Amino acid sequence: MPHLSIDCVIFGYQARELKVLISKFNFKGNFYGLPSGFILHTEGVDEAAYRILKERTGIENIYLEQFKIFGEANRNNKVVFDYLWQDEAERKKFIDISGDELQWFKSRFISFGYYALVDITKVTPQKTDIDESMTWYSIHDLPNLIMDHKQIIEKALDSMRLSLDKNIIILNLLPEVFTMKEVQDLYETIFEQTYARNNFQKKILELNVLERLEKKYTGAQNKAPYLYRFKPNGLAHERG
Amino acid sequence: MPHLSIDCVIFGYQARELKVLISKFNFKGNFYGLPSGFILHTEGVDEAAYRILKERTGIENIYLEQFKIFGEANRNNKVVFDYLWQDEAERKKFIDISGDELQWFKSRFISFGYYALVDITKVTPQKTDIDESMTWYSIHDLPNLIMDHKQIIEKALDSMRLSLDKNIIILNLLPEVFTMKEVQDLYETIFEQTYARNNFQKKILELNVLERLEKKYTGAQNKAPYLYRFKPNGLAHERG
Repeated sequence: MPHLSIDCVIFGYQARELKVLISKFNFKGNFYGLPSGFILHTEGVDEAAYRILKERTGIENIYLEQFKIFGEANRNNKVVFDYLWQDEAERKKFIDISGDELQWFKSRFISFGYYALVDITKVTPQKTDIDESMTWYSIHDLPNLIMDHKQIIEKALDSMRLSLDKNIIILNLLPEVFTMKEVQDLYETIFEQTYARNNFQKKILELNVLERLEKKYTGAQNKAPYLYRFKPNGLAHERG
Repeated sequence: MPHLSIDCVIFGYQARELKVLISKFNFKGNFYGLPSGFILHTEGVDEAAYRILKERTGIENIYLEQFKIFGEANRNNKVVFDYLWQDEAERKKFIDISGDELQWFKSRFISFGYYALVDITKVTPQKTDIDESMTWYSIHDLPNLIMDHKQIIEKALDSMRLSLDKNIIILNLLPEVFTMKEVQDLYETIFEQTYARNNFQKKILELNVLERLEKKYTGAQNKAPYLYRFKPNGLAHERG
């Protein structure tokens, strides 16, 4: 569909850092951007977002949240277009894009921003022909991104922080089994503040989505922390 | 811009009822729908939403929240199109729409849903040529709406309820000066549940956006409740 694109902000969490999945485009010019794509006439917008995410990164079966429309009248990809227009060899990498289609690429684009939170240990990002690499970057150490992709990441962060009190999607960032301290580390990383341990634990348990695993009897005095996981019908991994 | 439209869900509050602004279209067929419109190539998406709201209802200077994209692949306005197609007199009411443009009207539309909360006493809805009326309807007593407009209202309600704990846009529904009981009535109407009075008052005051007005000395024993209003720099009426 003309004038429409989808940008995916995929957050992962590792070593107390929040990371986001960034593509380095397969051009000599140093272009970095979010995994993005277009909407087919035959598919729904959400459907397109899941297809793009899968095609560009290999990630599927996660919950994508549509968080904002980026719709300024002058929003376009002119910088990349101009680069491609001036370099025939680079342009030819778009083997299936004719001159007309490249013009289309230059037009105004309204982007639908989606974000997702994933367990970084479970995801092996793939790249497509148009990516030189598809890599996790710390949100505090991003490369120079095309268009307004940096602002899109910032807005995704805002939306995620706003919605986290209401739901538990944040816990998607954790592995299957985790300690309460790991949960608190995660919240402190994302919100960039500290919490009182007892209050924090109380608040999380009140959500009523976690179950505590029994400690295994080891014979020794057991000082290992309790482990938690989602209840079988916990909400966090549901799509909807 | 092709394939794109904007639907505005304008909530008002009156006599402990939550209401929404609905247009009855100026056709013999009984078509009801949300105030809607299209996006010009030269305007941003948010800008279009404010223009449409103003043109269709006369409402301006309020905060519109973009809450969801309605993007199913088969989403179109075929019912109204077929009606107009079969009735030449009705069709001619679209004096500036040629046959081709009417075909365009039948194509797939992705709608951007916006909602706003307004003080019903301050708003006098206007109608345009395409409206027979522009009227407040209780959300519990809506007419038969075109397309998926009923679902759009339901999703707007969901989004509003979700975001209300985080911010205070709900208070936009109240007049300039109000009692704490009026605030509680409003919340109870919207969330369709009751709250304990003391806890409720505490929670609202903790938001730190209201100021209590001094009671005027009347000589008589003063049993009138305290009145509140927004602090001069309260957030509720800000556009963001």
